[in-house]
Amino acid sequence: MILIGLDPGLTCTGWGIVAKSGSRISHVANGQIRTDAKAGMAERLAELDAALTDVLLHHRPDSGAVEEVFVNKNPQSTLKLGQARGVAMLSLARAGMPVAEYPTKVIKKALVGTGAADKKQIQAMLKVLLPGVRLAGEDASDALAVAITHANMLGSHR
Amino acid sequence: MILIGLDPGLTCTGWGIVAKSGSRISHVANGQIRTDAKAGMAERLAELDAALTDVLLHHRPDSGAVEEVFVNKNPQSTLKLGQARGVAMLSLARAGMPVAEYPTKVIKKALVGTGAADKKQIQAMLKVLLPGVRLAGEDASDALAVAITHANMLGSHR
Repeated sequence: MILIGLDPGLTCTGWGIVAKSGSRISHVANGQIRTDAKAGMAERLAELDAALTDVLLHHRPDSGAVEEVFVNKNPQSTLKLGQARGVAMLSLARAGMPVAEYPTKVIKKALVGTGAADKKQIQAMLKVLLPGVRLAGEDASDALAVAITHANMLGSHR
Repeated sequence: MILIGLDPGLTCTGWGIVAKSGSRISHVANGQIRTDAKAGMAERLAELDAALTDVLLHHRPDSGAVEEVFVNKNPQSTLKLGQARGVAMLSLARAGMPVAEYPTKVIKKALVGTGAADKKQIQAMLKVLLPGVRLAGEDASDALAVAITHANMLGSHR
């Protein structure tokens, strides 16, 4: 089973894909999609959509998940984040996938064992869980953490 | 020239289409798209996307516009609005259209002559500008107001 996790953002969207076979989880790919800050909003969303669609066509995941976002206090940032997130969730839904959402704490707990883990602990744990993985960046790391959480949840219904 | 205006929302998205020929603007169609509140977020966004895509395929507008939104004070509502808005803007961009954004005040001023017009004044003016129009609801009315504003702006570069 191939699983994708997304960490959506207008400036940078992280994606991470893992394969689950029995209880074994292995790394498939991860990356980050940046949109052109000088372009108009609709164009940037179309860029994000096109790039995500490429990733989905290439890896054909069976199921996907996104992080339930921490809502930014700046309303304009929240709106922008929402717009990117809407496009990201749509790309999964249009590919026929069920889309799960997990709170940040659940993801941190699934990876590190505590809901209070920081980004460095998450990245260190990713390197343990997915030996040899090269992380494309912070957003890609967060996305892989979502994918692994999703893989655990699908398997165990904890 | 066929122009579409959108008033995006997760619960209800209004759309309005006008034709512009010289300085003459006429009504083509308007409607509202509701998504199933019991469905998951990604499913609702896919519903909205599918319905909007149908509208675009049917009417084939040349250009589109959305209202620059008043950002809700509740961050979760802003995020939801952003998600619907992202999908709506993407649907226009994917159809190859330039997408304009107009502040609410500009739209009200374009329709009624004052940036402080209320919804009833907007609807009354729509009935004057588009004789015989049947308004599908408040969101469809707002969307038609956006389309008319866009038609005026494209013509005159005021």
